[in-house]
Amino acid sequence: MGVVTSPKQDRSRATRQRLLEAAVGCLAEHGWAGSTVSAVAERAGVSRGATQHHFPTREDLFTAAVEYVAEERSSALRALPSQDRRTVVAALVDLYTGPLFRAALHLWVAASNEPQLHARVTELEARVGRESHRIAVELLRADESVDGVRETVQGLLDMARGLGLANLLTDDTTRRDRVVAQWARLVEESLSSSS
Amino acid sequence: MGVVTSPKQDRSRATRQRLLEAAVGCLAEHGWAGSTVSAVAERAGVSRGATQHHFPTREDLFTAAVEYVAEERSSALRALPSQDRRTVVAALVDLYTGPLFRAALHLWVAASNEPQLHARVTELEARVGRESHRIAVELLRADESVDGVRETVQGLLDMARGLGLANLLTDDTTRRDRVVAQWARLVEESLSSSS
Repeated sequence: MGVVTSPKQDRSRATRQRLLEAAVGCLAEHGWAGSTVSAVAERAGVSRGATQHHFPTREDLFTAAVEYVAEERSSALRALPSQDRRTVVAALVDLYTGPLFRAALHLWVAASNEPQLHARVTELEARVGRESHRIAVELLRADESVDGVRETVQGLLDMARGLGLANLLTDDTTRRDRVVAQWARLVEESLSSSS
Repeated sequence: MGVVTSPKQDRSRATRQRLLEAAVGCLAEHGWAGSTVSAVAERAGVSRGATQHHFPTREDLFTAAVEYVAEERSSALRALPSQDRRTVVAALVDLYTGPLFRAALHLWVAASNEPQLHARVTELEARVGRESHRIAVELLRADESVDGVRETVQGLLDMARGLGLANLLTDDTTRRDRVVAQWARLVEESLSSSS
């Protein structure tokens, strides 16, 4: 962006990123109960003091982490070269089967029982959800002014979320590939007939 | 079934059912961390000793509870009078937005981090998943010998699971109703054209 930053600012930003990535990894592997600030600081190789400087509370750290990684993934998805719709459907579903989804899932489920997380995670989920929807509409070249198109795309993202959940305990890749191929076909037909 | 049971057996069965229902309620409201055997015994009004007689371990109690309630719901669904496919789609999605889904979700997520739960919940999820699929095929009068039909139905259940997750932190009813109406239309068209 041409903004000049000092070496100190660069180091601070790099530390912050290391913490955010460690937090997502920790959440994905150990769940909310196993994800303490100390565990993340140790995983990132950052002192406890520096960690608290960046993120005063556990809630700050983990909501920021899920948001940061979601934004990284969104940017990567937007940067993809233009592709046919079936490939786009597969790429969208892939967003829901990796460590980011696992981390987000642990955070959502924890938030359903922890009042201090609930408001923040609800707000985060709404923001990430809107952003995923915008990206999906763009990549699928879907015309939302046509009746039902918005809901077709939303249902596709709901299906992707459900496929992510089905992949939590076992490797569901083989079944998922077949489901995605079929629904990519149905979504393609539906969007083509409505454009 | 015409099997003669003694009053003692009847009482024992009633106690077991009370425990199972209390366990699902506890899991849905408080999550895995808040769901101890003592909390369930108290909620059900059953002594700790009687509870341990029925369910020697915490894992026994909660996996049995999710399975029991899933079976109750399946039976209720099978007992529905024959309906048009769009109504069936809505009824299937409803299965994933109530306390049973919340309880199962907490159990799945806990199992992803707790080795002693993992194998049992994986096996339970596979069994409940196959049963939901069978019921969906039957109610939708879907002909799985036709290419793609099996995957259409599976994707619909994956979408329902994703809608359940979207309903975890906020009441998603308004959005969900629109998505379900549109996907019911897509499923209806797809199944009609392939029969």
